[in-house]
Amino acid sequence: MSHSFEKLNIFYAQSGGPTAVINATACGVIESAAACGKIGKVLIGKNGILGALREELIDTSLESPSAIKALLNTPGSAFGSCRYKLKDMKQDLTEYKRIMDVFKAHHIRYFLYNGGGDSQDTTRKIAEMSQALNYPLTCIGIPKTIDNDLPFTDNCPGFGSVAKYVAISTQEAAFDIRGMAVTSTQIFILEVMGRHAGWIGAAAGLGKKNTDDPPQLILFPEIAFDAESFLKQVKASVDKNGYCVIVASEGIRHADGHFVSESNLRDAFGHERLGGVAPLLALLIQEKLGYKYHWAVADYLQRAARHIASQTDFEQSYALGKVAVQQAVEEKGGVMLTINREDSKEYRWHVGTVPLEKVANVENKMPRHYISDDGYSITEACRQYLEPLIQGEAYPPYQNGLPQYVVLKNQLVEKKLDIAFSV
Amino acid sequence: MSHSFEKLNIFYAQSGGPTAVINATACGVIESAAACGKIGKVLIGKNGILGALREELIDTSLESPSAIKALLNTPGSAFGSCRYKLKDMKQDLTEYKRIMDVFKAHHIRYFLYNGGGDSQDTTRKIAEMSQALNYPLTCIGIPKTIDNDLPFTDNCPGFGSVAKYVAISTQEAAFDIRGMAVTSTQIFILEVMGRHAGWIGAAAGLGKKNTDDPPQLILFPEIAFDAESFLKQVKASVDKNGYCVIVASEGIRHADGHFVSESNLRDAFGHERLGGVAPLLALLIQEKLGYKYHWAVADYLQRAARHIASQTDFEQSYALGKVAVQQAVEEKGGVMLTINREDSKEYRWHVGTVPLEKVANVENKMPRHYISDDGYSITEACRQYLEPLIQGEAYPPYQNGLPQYVVLKNQLVEKKLDIAFSV
Repeated sequence: MSHSFEKLNIFYAQSGGPTAVINATACGVIESAAACGKIGKVLIGKNGILGALREELIDTSLESPSAIKALLNTPGSAFGSCRYKLKDMKQDLTEYKRIMDVFKAHHIRYFLYNGGGDSQDTTRKIAEMSQALNYPLTCIGIPKTIDNDLPFTDNCPGFGSVAKYVAISTQEAAFDIRGMAVTSTQIFILEVMGRHAGWIGAAAGLGKKNTDDPPQLILFPEIAFDAESFLKQVKASVDKNGYCVIVASEGIRHADGHFVSESNLRDAFGHERLGGVAPLLALLIQEKLGYKYHWAVADYLQRAARHIASQTDFEQSYALGKVAVQQAVEEKGGVMLTINREDSKEYRWHVGTVPLEKVANVENKMPRHYISDDGYSITEACRQYLEPLIQGEAYPPYQNGLPQYVVLKNQLVEKKLDIAFSV
Repeated sequence: MSHSFEKLNIFYAQSGGPTAVINATACGVIESAAACGKIGKVLIGKNGILGALREELIDTSLESPSAIKALLNTPGSAFGSCRYKLKDMKQDLTEYKRIMDVFKAHHIRYFLYNGGGDSQDTTRKIAEMSQALNYPLTCIGIPKTIDNDLPFTDNCPGFGSVAKYVAISTQEAAFDIRGMAVTSTQIFILEVMGRHAGWIGAAAGLGKKNTDDPPQLILFPEIAFDAESFLKQVKASVDKNGYCVIVASEGIRHADGHFVSESNLRDAFGHERLGGVAPLLALLIQEKLGYKYHWAVADYLQRAARHIASQTDFEQSYALGKVAVQQAVEEKGGVMLTINREDSKEYRWHVGTVPLEKVANVENKMPRHYISDDGYSITEACRQYLEPLIQGEAYPPYQNGLPQYVVLKNQLVEKKLDIAFSV
């Protein structure tokens, strides 16, 4: 107790969709805070910023060092995450005042928020409001998103592991269908995440060495879906290779901007929302070309696949947690950390920063020159960008045939404010 | 050429759906045949028994030893597989005569067929007909099926690796949803293979330690699906845990025997076959309970996941290939090989045999005492049976971030018969 009066505390929280390696960042924060000798406790918001609003702060000092270390190997959001947008500060200051009250009561002087685009915007708002409300708070955004769509950072922590999983899974499924195509199935469709940006789908192309290799077709949200051209390509692949492996981003759209998953295609086959672009494409192919199909929707499996996380991704995520604490102690706030790729032949990177106000509302989609002219595969430039991000296998330890993932105690510190806050 | 006149050849082929480790069996056959000094060549049927009918025989002596060794780490059916049923021998002998002609022309004296129930039946037919047609042929069935439904063998090669993948993926997805349940998604459904037997779904229960742990519900084909009871369980889990993870076998049925995937449920939401039980269950839950859901369909990804194959499964698959050659050389045909679990505290196994005529048309479903009384989870007896099968991680070697899987040359031997045979 007295301890936290002497040294000031860090608030850290996780926001948005989990990744396979976001807990490695948390581990970096907790370990570095303990090691630097200048921080009291790391208090973690239960369910992201909601933890600050509700005064639900997890006391990480009550966990064993080995439990904290096990975060390195555990997927998901170990402290709970949230999808929550703070109110517009021009209209309602209640939430911001509450957060400052909670932070004051718990001697929190550092705000580290780990998330994607919306979360960086939350960090920016908190930074602005702490100044406006005269509460000294060093605010640092830590990037994380499997979508790889944050600007200024060369890549986003969490993405490399999904990329690796999707690249491997696509090749494995291709080995499967290759053996079956003569007497059974000709079409395999894998649906991957990517509502607006095609980075995850692009990663499926990493296992393709020659033009005719699988995946024969990748569908990107950045390229308008053209059923006629698509079917022509599918037929050409089956004619030539005997089969066709297709990787479809969930967010592919028609030329008019409508998602294929909400399109006429769907209306023709059923009025309810069944979700999933893969089954729709499968039906289209069966109807028009008559091929037998299989499809898979990877969903959470892709972003939670800690068992085959990328070593690069893992190291970057851990490093960001450490650097965030350094930045905090040096009171260099108002920034989002970035991964900067160095201009070297071998892949090298370091952690940099960018002012938070530059980050808000910029979405980093696939540049056109990363996609082949026909719109169905990746270019050499894209391969060179992606390849370093999937290097190395950060295997978790196993016990009895299963990965040793940790569930923390997540004990809350005693509340100090009289008033509860409902959100 | 002269070489094959001195020593007789083996015909080996793969049949039915591929697995992550069936090529390890092929490797065992090829390596043992070379090592024993009593076999000419291993000629492999291109696309299973079709290769015998079409005289399309792959000459494995043209592959480098390192390429053969790489089969150990490569998923799929490296020589092509098939789904093909030989004609009834009481009505039409053409196919059997053709096969014997091809075998005679290529000095084939041993027939090793690697597959599931239907493939064992093919082996039985070939064995019977070779006797009837007076062609000396030693016929050995090698088990393989992810469904784990072959009788007499304690388990089926290929199953352990799917089981491991499904157990891990279920836990990983559970870590994901646990972090998101408060503000976003409450339901996650993973659809796994298993048309008639629930073994794969059962494996998802291996990561569950306590009653409330995920997966909260497993749906088995052996237990009639009861929507009312199901929804009650889902609600109870969300009330208690905040979320619910469900693993559904693709082959779950209503009490009247109809597949849920073809049921009224489907008719209520769309007339076309969209496939997939997971999206149907998701809709049902949303309609009746209003929870937000995510679902995944693992499909080929589960049975091709060589990147996380079970070491036990891997070793058994390799051993079967070796023993098959020993049996062949000793002319002990007319059997299917089996994995026999020894009566020991630690898990031990050896390869045994069972007469082929006993195997045909017996499907090994989950015994009732492997499923909990309420029908939604596995029992301790089931856990004890399954656990040894997922032990160890048989990681493939990696290069540049991806597994080093091999594609063989698969060169055919010159045809010796004048007549082509169309199937």
